[in-house]
Amino acid sequence: MEPIEIVGYAAAVLSTISFVPQAVKTIRTKDTKSISLVMYSLFTTAVLCWLIYGVATHDAPVALANAFTLLFAGIILICKIKYK
Amino acid sequence: MEPIEIVGYAAAVLSTISFVPQAVKTIRTKDTKSISLVMYSLFTTAVLCWLIYGVATHDAPVALANAFTLLFAGIILICKIKYK
Repeated sequence: MEPIEIVGYAAAVLSTISFVPQAVKTIRTKDTKSISLVMYSLFTTAVLCWLIYGVATHDAPVALANAFTLLFAGIILICKIKYK
Repeated sequence: MEPIEIVGYAAAVLSTISFVPQAVKTIRTKDTKSISLVMYSLFTTAVLCWLIYGVATHDAPVALANAFTLLFAGIILICKIKYK
């Protein structure tokens, strides 16, 4: 594997797992005061677009990474709406 | 332009601009309590990897989108560290 491919895979894995600690923190504390509703509304829509794009272009890494990100970002968005 | 390309561009634009309202909110309120430090540490590293990947593979949309995202995510991370 080329070194730049490793950087690409690291980027994909890191950007997907980065939302896990936020989702865990938000579920645990129910505190969403400093989280932006507009950010998570836009971001969840963006991730859904990436997922559709990944599926339609048969790009498995893009589809897979964004399926997981959609789950975590969606949880944060639901918490933000619920515990507003 | 194919409809799926429009979805791809929408995804790129939305995921980049989604961090703007969070950065604005954080700068204004100085409140970072419910924001996860681990998330923004991982996510900023991820975006830096995407930027390096985009530049190295001469993928202008990936490089450009992630240069802007790095700026906004970096601001949120700095605020989180500063106003901890």
